[in-house]
Order: sequence, then structure tokens, then C-alpha cells
Amino acid sequence: MTGKPQTSPAQTAPDLSGRIVISVDAMGGDAGPSVVVAGIAKSAQKNPEIGFILHGPIEQLEPLVARKKVLKDCCEIRDVRDVVTMEDKPSQIMRRGKGTSMWAAIDCVKNGEAAGVVSCGNTGALMALSMLRLRKLPGVNRPAIAILWPSRNPQGFNVMLDVGADVKADAEDLLQYALMGTSYIRNSMDLKCPRVGLLNVGTEEHKGRAELKEAYQLISRNAEAANYEFVGFVEGSDIPGDIADVIVTDGFTGNVAIKTGEGTASLLRSAMREAFEYSFLSRVAALLAYTSLARLSKRIDPRRVNGGVFLGLNGTVVKSHGGADATGVSAAVKLAFRLAQQGFAEKLAARVASAVESTQDDATSTDSNVDAPISRAAGDHRQ
Amino acid sequence: MTGKPQTSPAQTAPDLSGRIVISVDAMGGDAGPSVVVAGIAKSAQKNPEIGFILHGPIEQLEPLVARKKVLKDCCEIRDVRDVVTMEDKPSQIMRRGKGTSMWAAIDCVKNGEAAGVVSCGNTGALMALSMLRLRKLPGVNRPAIAILWPSRNPQGFNVMLDVGADVKADAEDLLQYALMGTSYIRNSMDLKCPRVGLLNVGTEEHKGRAELKEAYQLISRNAEAANYEFVGFVEGSDIPGDIADVIVTDGFTGNVAIKTGEGTASLLRSAMREAFEYSFLSRVAALLAYTSLARLSKRIDPRRVNGGVFLGLNGTVVKSHGGADATGVSAAVKLAFRLAQQGFAEKLAARVASAVESTQDDATSTDSNVDAPISRAAGDHRQ
Repeated sequence: MTGKPQTSPAQTAPDLSGRIVISVDAMGGDAGPSVVVAGIAKSAQKNPEIGFILHGPIEQLEPLVARKKVLKDCCEIRDVRDVVTMEDKPSQIMRRGKGTSMWAAIDCVKNGEAAGVVSCGNTGALMALSMLRLRKLPGVNRPAIAILWPSRNPQGFNVMLDVGADVKADAEDLLQYALMGTSYIRNSMDLKCPRVGLLNVGTEEHKGRAELKEAYQLISRNAEAANYEFVGFVEGSDIPGDIADVIVTDGFTGNVAIKTGEGTASLLRSAMREAFEYSFLSRVAALLAYTSLARLSKRIDPRRVNGGVFLGLNGTVVKSHGGADATGVSAAVKLAFRLAQQGFAEKLAARVASAVESTQDDATSTDSNVDAPISRAAGDHRQ
Repeated sequence: MTGKPQTSPAQTAPDLSGRIVISVDAMGGDAGPSVVVAGIAKSAQKNPEIGFILHGPIEQLEPLVARKKVLKDCCEIRDVRDVVTMEDKPSQIMRRGKGTSMWAAIDCVKNGEAAGVVSCGNTGALMALSMLRLRKLPGVNRPAIAILWPSRNPQGFNVMLDVGADVKADAEDLLQYALMGTSYIRNSMDLKCPRVGLLNVGTEEHKGRAELKEAYQLISRNAEAANYEFVGFVEGSDIPGDIADVIVTDGFTGNVAIKTGEGTASLLRSAMREAFEYSFLSRVAALLAYTSLARLSKRIDPRRVNGGVFLGLNGTVVKSHGGADATGVSAAVKLAFRLAQQGFAEKLAARVASAVESTQDDATSTDSNVDAPISRAAGDHRQ
């Protein structure tokens, strides 16, 4: 944390009634608040229904917001003096983070002023504060971060979770991820019966770590009740593939996987750029192929899918990439807005609750030996 | 396993003296022996110094080899009736795998007939049999599979290990991976002081799992003695990056990471192809950019770097991708040949032995508290 831990009342307050309000932590991104303000200005231009409550030091935010006319009537600034840095440990922030822009931004969701919150800041701190202020949904042990990943699926994306909320997950957590991930994709992409894959080092049932074999059984047994299809173990190559819509894994593996994918995509993009700048002929070719290349570029642009959603909390939290530019911030805001429009937080809560109920019903109505792990998973609300 | 467990003596035996002999398991790849034979024929065309001992059912191999004139004087077929399938468990193969082509291929290295072995078969079985027949190097607890990954480094590649020999690794195993990985890259790419990075979910020292924090200390303390630079924790995005030459991780994470990278690269390649086939103009552009695209295609072609090397054994074992085509098999053969030419197996053995010695020296010559983990790592030869 930096700065003095104090907050002061709102300095500018346009009327946000009639809008879907998104609370935005202006601080903590790699490029500072100017990129965040540019991002919400982009969003405001495209979606006049969005209202913003922007949190951070007013002397930094006011001049930035003043320069964007589109924000004049839809953006309220809340002066918060303190900032969570990338170096702050989550445990410190939970104890002493009350005066930070991140805390204030989350509290707007807690107290019902906003329908969702967006932050580019420290992921660990954002998850810790979100859990502290919003609390976990009943039935959820470890919340997870879900992202969309470009894939060969008809919808163009897969959902993967957890990509970094926690470095570990046991079998029951992995079952919860399957339930939350299917709810997320079902609501946001209109898939009736999503296919769930469990990430492993091979597709054979005997492979991998012990907790994965246990999770395999749990996720398989809950498929019918929770209305998803379990395709079994999948491999890293299936993350951008088309055999599953939801990829379930622990936060350590998921985080390494998405960052490897991002790094590889970025390397290929540079290699492609170099190839087209190599000779006169290739530069002419690039001009001719301009439209095709632009379309390709858009399809594989990681900024389009910027925004990890925290699943398993009482409220919608979107984590934007720390290095996001204005386009990236705008994508994260759009995601929070879309989820708010759909009442996703409420639907997810209902989904998890009904899964807990239905698996409990199953456990009592069938052979108790076979279903023991299910009732254990459903009954264990270690909050 | 399939077929009858029996072997018979060599049916055709050209004189291989004066050649560097590579032992090849013809069976077990997704596409069967025809692709393997096509692959070694490619290699034979490029490298007349290579000799091959090819293992598998003679009635399948003989007609395939007969069709490739280039193999006439450099390929000996050994009739082996049994085959390791992708479904076989490593434990089964260790007990009953004696009559398989994989076993026979490895034994050629064990008994000195070949300088290295290449197989496209079941990775788990290949590692188990290699450990059983070739034995681990003194000082190595868990052998690892190392691969080359296209990167932004001057040399164009990073080495990553372990990518799947074992699903877990403790701190001392990770130190061994750092030692073996630096030896591999130093010998194969002529880097004097390779940079080592330890894969984690963030670069801050407090992040990640407990064993990673311990490994951080071990790898850091051994840097000077083993002549590498430790750059600390790295993330998935650094695997194709330029801040480390050797990426150290456990086999589960490494396996998911490379497969995610491969899948992402493959998705981008299809997207690019589609973009260029989209319109008349883009097809003209593709023609104009033909040379540039071919160069790009070659740079990002995963078949060029096909071949994971098993490090930590008494002998060189190269695992080719199960789905490799002839170009892929040829790349794996080339890798085994190059390593044999350089006497890599001997150099690695010497490197690990001297690291063990030097860390033992360190432990006795300095404060025993500070170096306790080093001497523990070096002294613990749980073979």
C-alpha cells in the first residue's frame, strides 16, 4: 500500500439512476489510471447504459475524466487516497486495506450501489478482499477465476477455471469448479448442456495425481443432476480445442497454462509481423491481405477476452489484466456489464444452491456407498 | 501389449560399422511403422553417417524398408513380435515387456550396439523401461524429459524440463532438473552460462507452493558452483520469452504447459490459413508472400523441435511425439544423432557427478546451516 489511509466523500456526482452501474478501481494497473479512464471512456461510447463509479485519488482522476467528454454524465469519482500495489501481500491488504481504491470499489457491490466491480490490480489482493467483503456463496469452498480462451468450438471460446485464485484444489473444489464453470458458460453463451473436461497429463483414467482420479469420479457422478456432459480427462492441447466447453483445473496449473498460451500466441504474432516486413514483396502482400489479416488479428487478439471472472462470491468481480490497455479495460467493463444485465450473480447462486440440494437428494435416495463422495462434496461447506 | 512375447534373431543385417548407430522402436506411434520408416529414410538421405537398428515385426517392417532404397545399406531390422500400446500401464510393461520392440530398442543402447534410441511410443512405458534397463545416473533421483521450445532467445529455443517424466517433483528434484537442463543446453547450444528460471504463478518470492520456495533457495545457492545464472521465478509467458534459457518445473505442470502452447500455436496456424483462403485478394496476397510465409511456417513448425530427451539416465533416449509424421520422426533421429556425436550422455554424467561433488565440497567447506539443503540434495541418491 502507498499513501495515507483515508477516504473522503464523493467530489463529483452525476446522476447514475437508470444505468447499470459498474464500480471501477482506477489504480493498480501497470500503466496507471490514465489507461483505466481511457478504457471506461471507450465503454461509455459503445454502451450509453453503463454508469461508472471510479475509485482513486481525486487529483489524479479528475483531470483524466475531465478530458473525456463522454464520461461527463456517467462517471462519478470517489476520492480514495490509498492504493494496493503489485508488491502488497493479500494478508496485509486484508488487515490494512480499508482505505484503498480496491476495497472501496468492491464495497460498492457489497452495498448494492454497483452491479459489478472491475480492477486491473494485484490479483491475490483482489481475491482476498473480494472474499472478505462479498463472502463466498453457500456451498463453495474455494472461489475460482474463470477466463474465456479462444478455441475451435462453435462459440469460439472455452471457459477455463481456476486460473489463479488458489495454488491448489482438492477433488471437491474441482467439482465446484465444474458446477460454476458450466453455470457461467450456460448463462453467457446460451449452451444448454456444456461439455466439461478435467485437465490432466493424459486422457487415460489411470494417469495423473490422486486428487484428479477422485475428482474424475465426483464430476462424472454429478453430470446428470447438474446437466452437463463429462468428457473425462483432457490435455493442454484441448484448452484451445473443441472437445470441451469448460476446462477444470487447479489454479497453479491453470495459471501456467494460460500464460504459456498467451506467450506462445504473442511470439507467433511477432514472428508473423516480421515475416510480412521482411521484403518488398511481402510488404505488398501484407497490403493486399490487409482485411484478412485484420480479421485474423481481431480473432486472436487477447485484449478481446480480457477479464477473469471471480466465481463463487456474492457479487460479480472482474479482474482485468494488469498490463491491459484501454481496449482491454473496455473489454473487462463490457464483461462485467453483460453479466450484470443477465443477473448472472443471482443465477450462479441459485445454480450452486440447487446442485448442492440435488446432490444431497441423490445421496439420500441411492446406494450410500456409491454416492458417499457426492454427499461429502455437497455437504462440506467449509466457509 | 499385443502379439506373442517372443523375439527372433536379425533377419537382415547390413554392415553398420563406421556409422553412428541409432536404435529405433518402429512400433507404438499413432500412425504405425510406415511413418517411422519414412522418417528414418529422410534422416538417412540427409545424414549418410547414421546407421539404424529397427525393431518390430519383420513381416511389417521388411516391405516398408525394401521400398526405401536409401535404407538398403544402413538399416538392420530386428524381428520383435510384441508391441507396447498406448493403453499399456508402465508397471505392466516393466514386468512383462521383455518381448516388445521398445524393450529391444532400449537394450541396444544398454549393450553398446547403439549410441541412442528413438521411440514414438507410450511415454510412461518408455520412461519406465529406460529406467529399468539403463538405470539412473548416480546423483539423480527423478529423471526428466526435456524439450526445446521456440522462444525469443538469440538461440531461438529454450529448454524446458520436466515435461512429463513424473507428475511430481520436490525441491531437490527441481535442483537436479536445473543441473541437467543447463548441461543439456550448454552442450547442445554452446551457451557458457545459461540462465535458469523456476516456473511459478508469479515472480514474487512469496508466491506459489511450499516446495517451490525451497527449490528457489536450492537452485539459487548452487548457481555459482554449477556455472549458471539463476533468474528466479518465471511465469508461463516466459517459456517462449527471452529471460531464461532453461525453464525448470514439475512434470505435471510442464506437460500441461507445452500441450497448451502447442494447441494454441496450432489454432493460430489454422486461423492464419483460413484468413489467407478467405477472398481472392487474400489468396493473391498469400502467393506474393509465399517465401515469407514459408519462412514463418518453418520457424513455428512444431515438427522441427520434435523429440523430448530423457535426462538423468545412462544413455540417450529420445521420445518422439506419438502423432509425429515422417518429418517429426526425422527430427527426433537427428536429435539423437547430434547428441551421440557430441558424447552428450558422457558429458551429462560427468556434469551431474561434478555438481554432486562440488556441492558436497561446498557443504563441508562452509557454514553447515546455510548449506544444509545443498548437501542434502547432493547426498540423497535415492536410487
